[in-house]
Amino acid sequence: MTKVGIILGSKSDMEIARVAVNTLKEFAVDFDIIISSAHRTPDRTSAWVKNAKKNNIEIIIAIAGAAAHLGGVVASKTLLPVIAVPVASTALCGFDALLSSVQMPGGIPVATMAIGTAGAKNAALFACQIAALNDETLNKKLLIHRDRMKEQVVQDSENILKNIK
Amino acid sequence: MTKVGIILGSKSDMEIARVAVNTLKEFAVDFDIIISSAHRTPDRTSAWVKNAKKNNIEIIIAIAGAAAHLGGVVASKTLLPVIAVPVASTALCGFDALLSSVQMPGGIPVATMAIGTAGAKNAALFACQIAALNDETLNKKLLIHRDRMKEQVVQDSENILKNIK
Amino acid sequence: MTKVGIILGSKSDMEIARVAVNTLKEFAVDFDIIISSAHRTPDRTSAWVKNAKKNNIEIIIAIAGAAAHLGGVVASKTLLPVIAVPVASTALCGFDALLSSVQMPGGIPVATMAIGTAGAKNAALFACQIAALNDETLNKKLLIHRDRMKEQVVQDSENILKNIK
Amino acid sequence: MTKVGIILGSKSDMEIARVAVNTLKEFAVDFDIIISSAHRTPDRTSAWVKNAKKNNIEIIIAIAGAAAHLGGVVASKTLLPVIAVPVASTALCGFDALLSSVQMPGGIPVATMAIGTAGAKNAALFACQIAALNDETLNKKLLIHRDRMKEQVVQDSENILKNIK
Amino acid sequence: MTKVGIILGSKSDMEIARVAVNTLKEFAVDFDIIISSAHRTPDRTSAWVKNAKKNNIEIIIAIAGAAAHLGGVVASKTLLPVIAVPVASTALCGFDALLSSVQMPGGIPVATMAIGTAGAKNAALFACQIAALNDETLNKKLLIHRDRMKEQVVQDSENILKNIK
Amino acid sequence: MTKVGIILGSKSDMEIARVAVNTLKEFAVDFDIIISSAHRTPDRTSAWVKNAKKNNIEIIIAIAGAAAHLGGVVASKTLLPVIAVPVASTALCGFDALLSSVQMPGGIPVATMAIGTAGAKNAALFACQIAALNDETLNKKLLIHRDRMKEQVVQDSENILKNIK
Amino acid sequence: MTKVGIILGSKSDMEIARVAVNTLKEFAVDFDIIISSAHRTPDRTSAWVKNAKKNNIEIIIAIAGAAAHLGGVVASKTLLPVIAVPVASTALCGFDALLSSVQMPGGIPVATMAIGTAGAKNAALFACQIAALNDETLNKKLLIHRDRMKEQVVQDSENILKNIK
Amino acid sequence: MTKVGIILGSKSDMEIARVAVNTLKEFAVDFDIIISSAHRTPDRTSAWVKNAKKNNIEIIIAIAGAAAHLGGVVASKTLLPVIAVPVASTALCGFDALLSSVQMPGGIPVATMAIGTAGAKNAALFACQIAALNDETLNKKLLIHRDRMKEQVVQDSENILKNIK
Repeated sequence: MTKVGIILGSKSDMEIARVAVNTLKEFAVDFDIIISSAHRTPDRTSAWVKNAKKNNIEIIIAIAGAAAHLGGVVASKTLLPVIAVPVASTALCGFDALLSSVQMPGGIPVATMAIGTAGAKNAALFACQIAALNDETLNKKLLIHRDRMKEQVVQDSENILKNIK
Repeated sequence: MTKVGIILGSKSDMEIARVAVNTLKEFAVDFDIIISSAHRTPDRTSAWVKNAKKNNIEIIIAIAGAAAHLGGVVASKTLLPVIAVPVASTALCGFDALLSSVQMPGGIPVATMAIGTAGAKNAALFACQIAALNDETLNKKLLIHRDRMKEQVVQDSENILKNIK
Repeated sequence: MTKVGIILGSKSDMEIARVAVNTLKEFAVDFDIIISSAHRTPDRTSAWVKNAKKNNIEIIIAIAGAAAHLGGVVASKTLLPVIAVPVASTALCGFDALLSSVQMPGGIPVATMAIGTAGAKNAALFACQIAALNDETLNKKLLIHRDRMKEQVVQDSENILKNIK
Repeated sequence: MTKVGIILGSKSDMEIARVAVNTLKEFAVDFDIIISSAHRTPDRTSAWVKNAKKNNIEIIIAIAGAAAHLGGVVASKTLLPVIAVPVASTALCGFDALLSSVQMPGGIPVATMAIGTAGAKNAALFACQIAALNDETLNKKLLIHRDRMKEQVVQDSENILKNIK
Repeated sequence: MTKVGIILGSKSDMEIARVAVNTLKEFAVDFDIIISSAHRTPDRTSAWVKNAKKNNIEIIIAIAGAAAHLGGVVASKTLLPVIAVPVASTALCGFDALLSSVQMPGGIPVATMAIGTAGAKNAALFACQIAALNDETLNKKLLIHRDRMKEQVVQDSENILKNIK
Repeated sequence: MTKVGIILGSKSDMEIARVAVNTLKEFAVDFDIIISSAHRTPDRTSAWVKNAKKNNIEIIIAIAGAAAHLGGVVASKTLLPVIAVPVASTALCGFDALLSSVQMPGGIPVATMAIGTAGAKNAALFACQIAALNDETLNKKLLIHRDRMKEQVVQDSENILKNIK
Repeated sequence: MTKVGIILGSKSDMEIARVAVNTLKEFAVDFDIIISSAHRTPDRTSAWVKNAKKNNIEIIIAIAGAAAHLGGVVASKTLLPVIAVPVASTALCGFDALLSSVQMPGGIPVATMAIGTAGAKNAALFACQIAALNDETLNKKLLIHRDRMKEQVVQDSENILKNIK
Repeated sequence: MTKVGIILGSKSDMEIARVAVNTLKEFAVDFDIIISSAHRTPDRTSAWVKNAKKNNIEIIIAIAGAAAHLGGVVASKTLLPVIAVPVASTALCGFDALLSSVQMPGGIPVATMAIGTAGAKNAALFACQIAALNDETLNKKLLIHRDRMKEQVVQDSENILKNIK
């Protein structure tokens, strides 16, 4: 069974990370989680990444703000798929974290999601979609999840719109 | 064996797509390729996506510029992992295609790569990395590719720098 | 008589949509309203758009945030005029929704209004202006509305400025 | 039959305007065209707009770059639908013309298209779509046009891709 | 003696305008003030501008947000110097109002100040500096104002820093 | 008679400055011109500014690119009106020079024009407009100039449009 | 022993400056601090910079917002290393202060740090790192500081994550 | 005597690096130079940085484009001062490299210079200024260099302006 490794650059990214954690729990996907900075604890980060495969991690989610190097630094040390979630933690509205994550040069891919909680949710879902390529049960859960989202939209439409006219 | 599906929004994206194609060929990963627009041929796009799994496609790469909806439109119709490559095809330097690709709302993930050729190369590599989770041969090829990149950097360093001092 | 179809990508866009709704009511223009996401409920969106003409809808207003694909997705399935209202619902101050809405490639037009409530009001007014091309009564209402705006500006000028000197 | 009024802020916008003109010609939609600046010839602009309805113009396309006020200035003087095409004519890559066109305050709508030639084509198509609400012949032409675009995409897909594998 | 004309696009710009007003009062420079929109009340705006010289106005300050066309529209109808103050009144942090004000095409100058209150203060000071070219008394007041600013900086430096070490 | 002082931050700004020079010559307005950098020759800049009034300069035009501090540095040392022309001389498309020029803090105004040649032309015209407040001959020249621009627009409209239909 | 000179453009920058001050205190590095504006008190700023070396200052930290010219103005008058900290004090989210600080033309370097408190902390640390080149005691303190940051990250990781699973 | 270490992320950064090299040569400052990527050769980069001090390197200049992580990655492994030069090597005009370099989180400073050749020159000059704190000969060379820049500006002013009037 797939295990996802979640790495946060700072404890201030925890609020965003929790959304990824909850999504993985919802799909009963196992995960490891660690706070380790690309800059303040580069060796710890490096060690964690290099041991990831040995620790049965298959997919990594890196969550960081500002000059968000974490995704790139992690990706440079592993062939496991790395998904980045930029966090808007500075004055620049997340433009810094987004561009630092997504504009990776050719050779070392980092799959970037949206800034903030939407990105954290989608990072977890994307990890599940990768895992589901070889896990029919998980695939069915994802189908059900999509169906539930659809029902929720229909419900929202009915609830909110009934008193608009 | 994994097959990657590549979808381009327009023939003008072909120059970028070729980089992805060449990278997949380098790793002997099979692929289907199609030009189909999110806007001009929505039903064709939809049909291709819905048949992707049946056609043994496991991972999709969507390449588009301007208001690049292709990644999101494709992702909305499949649980296969979708990777987007934004193309800088308008006056806005690719900011439009990047933001249209990466800022997906929670629920439907699109894994976004860098704008242009770097992103196209990385999209193909990322697809290979996903496939390599269950393909040790491919994993070894990726390791060799990384080693070659390393050697190339060392070579570049020696070649270029020998006459600098 | 003209009927306007309003489509929202998410219930969180309701606050913005209400401004469009109120404006249409002010002009006694009939409307349908639905929450349907380009990404989470693509088939529902598609079905609604394809039935729009049959349901006597003449003009469509699409309201969405983030990677706001809704306007483009709707426009790809109908020849009815589609007006988009970008919503600032992420860290990026609405730049994402604006560029995703307005930078449509040649072939499938989406008429984009300003971000947020100003855009929602103008989307409704623009729909009225289109309808007024063949509805002299509505045209007169729009003229009166413009006159009232003028009077309001004069009033504002007098009210606020009387105690400034 | 509908007549479209095209107004350009400067002769340097002619290259962009020609795309709109050619598109209207393709659909045999009549048009008037004038160069008149919001800033250098405000009275000429004003007179042209005020006479537009009398001259049987039903829809106006305003094409301008830099601080592109033309769309707003035109819209302030008529209830005819005004479509703006921003032109990238300064160092700022069209961000100035786009924001000046689209961010209209509530009350006076300007329907903004993409920057440059894509926007010019779509402005003309959008005008046709409005006109087609009451012109079944034009509506059929638009349907055929969409079908041709679809065939072109399929053709592009076949032509270009045949030698890629 | 110089009179400055202040024109606001909307009552919501009043908070910013008050800073300009207070600065002019500080220098005992006479002013007229009016709320008149470039878009909602174009004729009122035009009439006010065309009468400005007759009303002894020598310099105009135009304060507006969003697609801030007011400065350009005013400048197109007068040879009096026009100073624009962009207001950050939309989601886009004032980038829209700034670019709409400053990127005027060659031929019709608009002197643009900073966004918001800093710009409003400087617009008034700049108007005073123009007036002071022919008013030695006003020039002396400006010199004293600069001296006071200097003293204030020294005072701030002493006050705040005394308890920092 | 008014004399304008033009200061350039670097010889590379000469191409832009020439537009200001030619415009002043067109109106027979006297000018001094100097290359002096805010950063490389701060004392030279300071001396030139401090002597400006003595040298009968009434209005200053500062032309600079990159972190364009020249306008602000000049304005900090004189009460003469200072007009800035940002130059797009770096990778950032002139955003750096524009923001460095226009976002002056309250107290020291710098009147900013558009980036590049349009701004240079308008800086000269704006200087003329200030001078024309007390120079009826110059005011008439400006009126004639505006009339010529109008005629040129009409001419452009006729020339270019005659073969479009 | 090294002394750092801290210069603030305005008392409103004090909140940011305090972070730099506290960091220097933590390392027992001596400092002078002054509020002096590039624009409001240019001569005071100039005098302070010119006396800096005489006052045993070796490194200067310049903290300013808006069109943040302070770093450049200071650097133009000294060969001491100048570090700039941009402050987000306007509507533009700090883009103005950042670009005004970092985009210095060739010849006069300004070492720019991140916007706001992160930048202020790093400016102080960077000054310490320069000083530590010739101060082994300080170098050891910096090593200990890095170790403490590492321990803090590990601690954060343990504290926060213990109740996540 | 000081030795500067120059590290480039890719051979494509060589054109920019050459400006830094030439500047160091001009001041007879010794340097090592290496191409080593943060992402493609992380261990090589790490080894080079960790040996820098042993190799008598005192100051490091990191030159990289796109998601320019090189400065941060280098700074995370050394207490030597690290200066970053962002390179505009993608569609985004250098915004990506600039934000990735400058927006470092608190704790690990990276001194960022301007994008491109101006930044490369200033990085070398800044390194010289640091070295000159303990090298009076170098300090004198820097003073002479500044004097030469001043003379050059005066010369430029005379040369270019002699035929302007």
